[in-house]
Amino acid sequence: MANKPSIPKGTRDFVPEQSSKRQFIFDTARSVFQSFGYQPIETPAMENLETLLGKYGDEGDRLIFKILNNGDYLSKVDDEKLRQKDSNALVKELSDRALRYDLTVPFARFVVQNQNELSFPFKRYQIQPVWRADRPQKGRYREFYQCDVDVIGSDSLLNETELLCIIDQVFSKLGLDDISIRINNRKILSGIAEASGLSAYFQQMTVAIDKLDKIGVDGVKEEMIRNGLPEAGVKKALNLINLTGDAEGVLNMLAGAMTGVEEAFRGIDEVRTVLKSLPESTREKVKIDLTLARGLNYYTGAIIEVGHSEFPSSICGGGRYDDLTGMFGLSDMSGIGISLGADRIYDLMEAKNLFPSNLDAGTQVMFVNFGQAEALKSFELASEVRASTMSAEVYPDSAKMKKQMKYANDKGISFVCMIGAEELASGTVAVKSMGTGEQENISMDALSNFLKEKLK
Amino acid sequence: MANKPSIPKGTRDFVPEQSSKRQFIFDTARSVFQSFGYQPIETPAMENLETLLGKYGDEGDRLIFKILNNGDYLSKVDDEKLRQKDSNALVKELSDRALRYDLTVPFARFVVQNQNELSFPFKRYQIQPVWRADRPQKGRYREFYQCDVDVIGSDSLLNETELLCIIDQVFSKLGLDDISIRINNRKILSGIAEASGLSAYFQQMTVAIDKLDKIGVDGVKEEMIRNGLPEAGVKKALNLINLTGDAEGVLNMLAGAMTGVEEAFRGIDEVRTVLKSLPESTREKVKIDLTLARGLNYYTGAIIEVGHSEFPSSICGGGRYDDLTGMFGLSDMSGIGISLGADRIYDLMEAKNLFPSNLDAGTQVMFVNFGQAEALKSFELASEVRASTMSAEVYPDSAKMKKQMKYANDKGISFVCMIGAEELASGTVAVKSMGTGEQENISMDALSNFLKEKLK
Repeated sequence: MANKPSIPKGTRDFVPEQSSKRQFIFDTARSVFQSFGYQPIETPAMENLETLLGKYGDEGDRLIFKILNNGDYLSKVDDEKLRQKDSNALVKELSDRALRYDLTVPFARFVVQNQNELSFPFKRYQIQPVWRADRPQKGRYREFYQCDVDVIGSDSLLNETELLCIIDQVFSKLGLDDISIRINNRKILSGIAEASGLSAYFQQMTVAIDKLDKIGVDGVKEEMIRNGLPEAGVKKALNLINLTGDAEGVLNMLAGAMTGVEEAFRGIDEVRTVLKSLPESTREKVKIDLTLARGLNYYTGAIIEVGHSEFPSSICGGGRYDDLTGMFGLSDMSGIGISLGADRIYDLMEAKNLFPSNLDAGTQVMFVNFGQAEALKSFELASEVRASTMSAEVYPDSAKMKKQMKYANDKGISFVCMIGAEELASGTVAVKSMGTGEQENISMDALSNFLKEKLK
Repeated sequence: MANKPSIPKGTRDFVPEQSSKRQFIFDTARSVFQSFGYQPIETPAMENLETLLGKYGDEGDRLIFKILNNGDYLSKVDDEKLRQKDSNALVKELSDRALRYDLTVPFARFVVQNQNELSFPFKRYQIQPVWRADRPQKGRYREFYQCDVDVIGSDSLLNETELLCIIDQVFSKLGLDDISIRINNRKILSGIAEASGLSAYFQQMTVAIDKLDKIGVDGVKEEMIRNGLPEAGVKKALNLINLTGDAEGVLNMLAGAMTGVEEAFRGIDEVRTVLKSLPESTREKVKIDLTLARGLNYYTGAIIEVGHSEFPSSICGGGRYDDLTGMFGLSDMSGIGISLGADRIYDLMEAKNLFPSNLDAGTQVMFVNFGQAEALKSFELASEVRASTMSAEVYPDSAKMKKQMKYANDKGISFVCMIGAEELASGTVAVKSMGTGEQENISMDALSNFLKEKLK
């Protein structure tokens, strides 16, 4: 095989430095989720194709990666259909399984399937990859991780409050204090549609508004009118969602414009209740943004999106849904969830240089290899160093000193220990700090304590 | 959708208890790997189909899950081929990508592709799922995790020693002190083949010997003779691999029978060197087993397998390879690696009741919800408890007491805090230990310290 090997477009390898940084994000998120009582679950990468089809719209159906059936997968396919080469029509005959497209639908399926083993309200987090056959581009991959937190089986607004606190804490712990959390409420949008005479077009309205960032107010207006929405209504709705100011101000103006529209008042009340219950340090980061629509039509209450002024894309989003599990036959399970975009958070943290510097340190201590007897002694001492909770390795080959030191340097090793024939005879170790270049001779017995002290 | 949802055969959901236990195994292994200087990498779930095909034999090729190309995947397929419905011949036309089948081939591909970014010897670990379209049965899944540790770019036997120490430490930390580690060496097997006049049949010989556990000595003998191996040679080889006793005894007997067979002596020397360099506590667990062959033909030196007397299957295995990356065009990269079977280790630990009891404890502290004002105060106190590094949650709804207590019980919560109207007025909390049933009244100010002390 002469070709240089490669991986599929839109997928990535992660070298140790990247993998350690990713692990740092996951571990940080996990520790916050757990401190609030959320528990981990995992679902299989493959779902039955019928579990996924029809849940993400036609475009989504196309972007799902399907798995070719094993064995003689063509034997049962109708000859006539094959002759017509209708790729779309044959998908279900060639493929029973597919790779999950997000964590939301598998979560709904999981809750229904395992309902007898779970305690409700069920608070879960899930950190796993998803796959989409999207056109790859900067920051958009065909395999990427989602990091979802949901509570299902409770319609209490305390869950909204809690998830906003979780968002605040995760990003603070990652060093991203300066995020802005935007919230809105589907009931307010529904009220705006009603007040503007657009109730019959609610779904088109939210889908169009969702594109505001990308196509601007004029673009949204055009799209709505092109889709047959009455122009006067469109203008009214766009004026309403453009109300800006502090939270209380926006809600008051809105209330003034919504006389008689009960649904809007329910939404306004929900937003007020959630804001009031937030700790002040979190409330300061939360803004009401009536233009926030999120096109997903399962949202029914709060909508949440998190952004950063120096980064174009949303780094976290979510909302309340009243009937997510209904698609699998279990109704009356209100819930709310958020999804953190691990890859975007990674890119943002990298751009702002926020990862702790010691994350990718391979090992704290390396022993140079001067030959078999010396290496065996080093191996013994390395075990002692490890027993004192440090990480240590012996360079496996008695290679040239320069090569061994380059390895230590590349791997970010803090201390290099040298046991040559002389040290072996005298029971000592020459210890060199890779940071300062200083070198000291230590008795072998004292080595672990010495290193432990230095590495504090 | 009326049908109860399901997942594909051979795949699994993991509820929180299972997921936490799995995480415990991974975290334990990870901490040992890192203490020896191994670093994490990740590779994509999907590889190019051509990267995987031909690496696992014909049977392996069939068991690889292929991904159906997206878009109009039939448009370029030859009409005549379609008409013949030759499923095998069409795989490469319908599918460019496949799910990884193990972590070894992706690792070799990774090393070649990223060689300029890595420091050699490169010590990596990788914990990721793999997929195989095997017939599902007890303990055998279509999606399962592998946990691989390799060092590549060094032929020093110190790596063998190190990996045996890693095996010992990982299993000790998991509570599995009573494992047995069996080792052998491909050079010894090659010497046995030579001494028995079977050199020309070496691959068939190792594949047959690999089945010894399943089909017995007679079965192995039959298979070799059926495959055309000369009977006298087969008998001689089987006598040699059946040598048993302590390590030094076996090696001495073997040496006596191998006069003039240099390859065998190279293998014997390697085994001796490795055994000598092991700490005694590890050496006690290591046995020489000349019947250990491992059918994979990329092994060239040490072979390792770990078992447990109460468990039929191997829970870890590996060996040295001299040319793993050769298949992707990079030669002269000797390495050695082991793979831990996370699912089997899980089953074994479950059977022996070895998981720490507090792993799936959802939360340490729960606040009962008595209504809005009480819940808001509870939410505030829960934040304080969390700030003192405990996990805490407020039950989101003011449901019946019985329901809330059942939730706390199901979730293994240690302390339940109750703030009703009275406590709210007096600034106190009623704290109940779920373990002892004891209940005390504490001032709100003292709550965090009180709980912290109790939870020590």
